[in-house]
Amino acid sequence: MTAHHARPVAHPGLIAHGGRLDAARRLYPDAPQPWIDLSTGINPRPWPLPPIAPQAWTRLPDDDAFAALETAARGAYAIPDAAALVAGGGGQAFIQLLPRVFPARHVGVLGFTYAEHAACWAAAGAETTTVDALDDLAGFDAAVIVNPNNPDGRLLTPADLAPLAQEMTRRGGLLVLDESFMDFTPEASAVALAAMEGVVLLRSFGKAYGLAGLRLGFALCAPARAAALRAAMGPWAVSGPALAIGAPALADAAWRRAAAKACAADAARLDALLARAGFTPLGGVSLFRLAAHPRAAERFALLCESGVLARAFPERPDWLRFGLPADEPAWARLSDALEARG
Amino acid sequence: MTAHHARPVAHPGLIAHGGRLDAARRLYPDAPQPWIDLSTGINPRPWPLPPIAPQAWTRLPDDDAFAALETAARGAYAIPDAAALVAGGGGQAFIQLLPRVFPARHVGVLGFTYAEHAACWAAAGAETTTVDALDDLAGFDAAVIVNPNNPDGRLLTPADLAPLAQEMTRRGGLLVLDESFMDFTPEASAVALAAMEGVVLLRSFGKAYGLAGLRLGFALCAPARAAALRAAMGPWAVSGPALAIGAPALADAAWRRAAAKACAADAARLDALLARAGFTPLGGVSLFRLAAHPRAAERFALLCESGVLARAFPERPDWLRFGLPADEPAWARLSDALEARG
Repeated sequence: MTAHHARPVAHPGLIAHGGRLDAARRLYPDAPQPWIDLSTGINPRPWPLPPIAPQAWTRLPDDDAFAALETAARGAYAIPDAAALVAGGGGQAFIQLLPRVFPARHVGVLGFTYAEHAACWAAAGAETTTVDALDDLAGFDAAVIVNPNNPDGRLLTPADLAPLAQEMTRRGGLLVLDESFMDFTPEASAVALAAMEGVVLLRSFGKAYGLAGLRLGFALCAPARAAALRAAMGPWAVSGPALAIGAPALADAAWRRAAAKACAADAARLDALLARAGFTPLGGVSLFRLAAHPRAAERFALLCESGVLARAFPERPDWLRFGLPADEPAWARLSDALEARG
Repeated sequence: MTAHHARPVAHPGLIAHGGRLDAARRLYPDAPQPWIDLSTGINPRPWPLPPIAPQAWTRLPDDDAFAALETAARGAYAIPDAAALVAGGGGQAFIQLLPRVFPARHVGVLGFTYAEHAACWAAAGAETTTVDALDDLAGFDAAVIVNPNNPDGRLLTPADLAPLAQEMTRRGGLLVLDESFMDFTPEASAVALAAMEGVVLLRSFGKAYGLAGLRLGFALCAPARAAALRAAMGPWAVSGPALAIGAPALADAAWRRAAAKACAADAARLDALLARAGFTPLGGVSLFRLAAHPRAAERFALLCESGVLARAFPERPDWLRFGLPADEPAWARLSDALEARG
């Protein structure tokens, strides 16, 4: 390996979040264009955008548009009648809001997982602890479980989660279930727990539907918690275009089934490709795959030099996470980049 | 006046905010279609939408897109270098956030004004007081001034505001200057005060540019306050389409000058029309006009029966506020509706 290859794999601009192509371009100005961004878990084949009525842009979003979105979301997520739905500007908006609206002193996060949950609780003054097992969450004022988990895809069943949900409800605690990556395994959702007083369940629109720029996400919870979240967000928290697109997309069950099937096939193809390149597949969901490599940092840098951005984890230096290539040229470039010699 | 006309002018669905056409349609199902919504201060002739790149919808918004928006906003608002700019999902998003990020015990609001400021401070636990004069704001921990004011257009100069900004800076207080309706009178902006530690200045994109559904607004303030606001909002607080549209729109100074001129002419025409119909014009800005009428509730109901939605104020039963009609048919319907007999 030459000095040229010893570039800073853990540069914060590349790893703080996926999707940081701007930072990658600056660090690797000589990489082939356009970059192939595999650093996120966003479906590379988006739900096809419909024409958008001018009123969605020009007017303030009104209650009728929110009602149409809610109807579609209730169908797509199979939300029980007793659970309320709150729409917001992306799943992250709720991750930011929960610690401020439902303060807790001691917060347990089932790790290793998406870093923003612990960061937002800590920013609100909570003492946060990362635990390795579900049973270790029992004693906390609030508990966070990303399910299926990002990045390793660990999946807990509703039966696994019910006792903790009941305990939190009984003693006024909070269980946050982040189902941002549940869309393509709807049968595994713990949505039946969302009406319990001790639960807030989060859903993300942009990842499965491939429209992350739209900023749309949901919280499902008991009505009193929903009222508190709505009051904190205020009116017009979702844009007109997000309402105009979200409602028909969530109502499109046929597209969702076909997309789930296509992504599952791609995920299997990606695992096979990574295994051939010397990676050990560790799991994930069908929108991204996690894999280990003894020289992951070197592989990350070589991928960057080929214009392919993966996701590195400074806390897990032997891991890389890969999203799905969008088309055959992207598969070919990834395949070549995985074969590159340092 | 018959019983038919004694409809509930103060129905919460019609007056809590402007733009509630959905509620108006339900209350007046026999009104001519389509309704003419004059209940907001949104420019009825929007900045013309450009084609939007697919990436604005599909990808997470990245730093380059935020940087382009910031450059355009700094030019449009003439922001001093020492002031930081924070972009968010509409002016309302900042009104919701300020009391949580910068808590204050005693908050004074220069009234009568947009109700959301006092409501959000009260929801965060502050004791809020509405005062009638700028000098009465001196003793509060935080003070709020909507400038120019909604609904009456009262305009304070930067020289008027500087002493309070200095006092708040000196003693660690906060002066919120809401310039949501300043776009067409840029020479009157107090933007020169935005770098002071004791000031947060808010700007709205959607009103002047006629794109309220987009959800885009800004806070201008000292860097430490900006960092706190950014941390509370988290990443991706602005949608990809809002970034893609906001940047070129804010850079379009020629459109802004022409729109200011057109709206000012329409505002004068609206005042004359209202005066002929027995209203007393009370002011406003060029995007809306406030007027008094001894039987304002009856006029509001008659306008609704003609499919014209004005803005009523339960606390000021003799006031109505009117936005600008979009085209000659809308002017004609308003003119006829103002002549209607109860």
